[in-house]
Amino acid sequence: MTIHLPDCPLCAAQDENILWQDASCRVIRVADPDYPGYCRLIWKSHVAEMSDLTPAEQLHCFKILMGVEVALRECFQPAKINLASLGNMVPHLHWHLIPRYREDRHFPQPIWGSARPEIQASPAPAVDDARLAVAIRNAIAEQLAG
Amino acid sequence: MTIHLPDCPLCAAQDENILWQDASCRVIRVADPDYPGYCRLIWKSHVAEMSDLTPAEQLHCFKILMGVEVALRECFQPAKINLASLGNMVPHLHWHLIPRYREDRHFPQPIWGSARPEIQASPAPAVDDARLAVAIRNAIAEQLAG
Repeated sequence: MTIHLPDCPLCAAQDENILWQDASCRVIRVADPDYPGYCRLIWKSHVAEMSDLTPAEQLHCFKILMGVEVALRECFQPAKINLASLGNMVPHLHWHLIPRYREDRHFPQPIWGSARPEIQASPAPAVDDARLAVAIRNAIAEQLAG
Repeated sequence: MTIHLPDCPLCAAQDENILWQDASCRVIRVADPDYPGYCRLIWKSHVAEMSDLTPAEQLHCFKILMGVEVALRECFQPAKINLASLGNMVPHLHWHLIPRYREDRHFPQPIWGSARPEIQASPAPAVDDARLAVAIRNAIAEQLAG
């Protein structure tokens, strides 16, 4: 059963840059000039925690997460991938996936920590939506086939 | 093959409060008075990313993560669970699991964001190591059996 709440910003989202989706979740690219590889995996039904999903749904969500991680590593060659499911502000299950670089605005802090004002531009390579979407589609297909 | 690096603080860790472990990973309780339910899942071999693990290892790690999440929800009844795999400072795979409350020191920010100085004490209930360890053991057993 899919639950949608009219007042939830993730249930009611519009104008997202969706790179991939299926019946249960979508992967969007976040418009953050400091982190051009920043993607978000959003579970479509309104649940708060991973452990609110059934075991099969958890596994599906995890495979999508791993597919996006693989695609981000391939496209962005980061120093590190950061994964986080927080949801304190919007308790609707979503994962942040952020390619990180030693020269980015918050390294080695999480992007929610203190910024380094001396960093002006992201060191991430330019990757257009089409190329990233293909990489994500292929990597997710491999995860789901495995 | 298990890799250990002598200079890595997670490979060489001592004096950890280990609540559960198997051949591949350990679950420790972090000594943080602001977040008494804060646990960390540490993969024992020195790898940086989830996608550096084999698919079977990824799935095992994920099931342990979900087991700890279930146990933390049961013991701490938080408003939200925060999960994060960052590793910018120590690129050795580990997951942060943090029970969060509306009245905690950083809510609704991640714990790496700005603290609220007016918050003096954690609102988390008192849960001793023995009780938490039993809850984690039982929840992980259920995950691994599923």
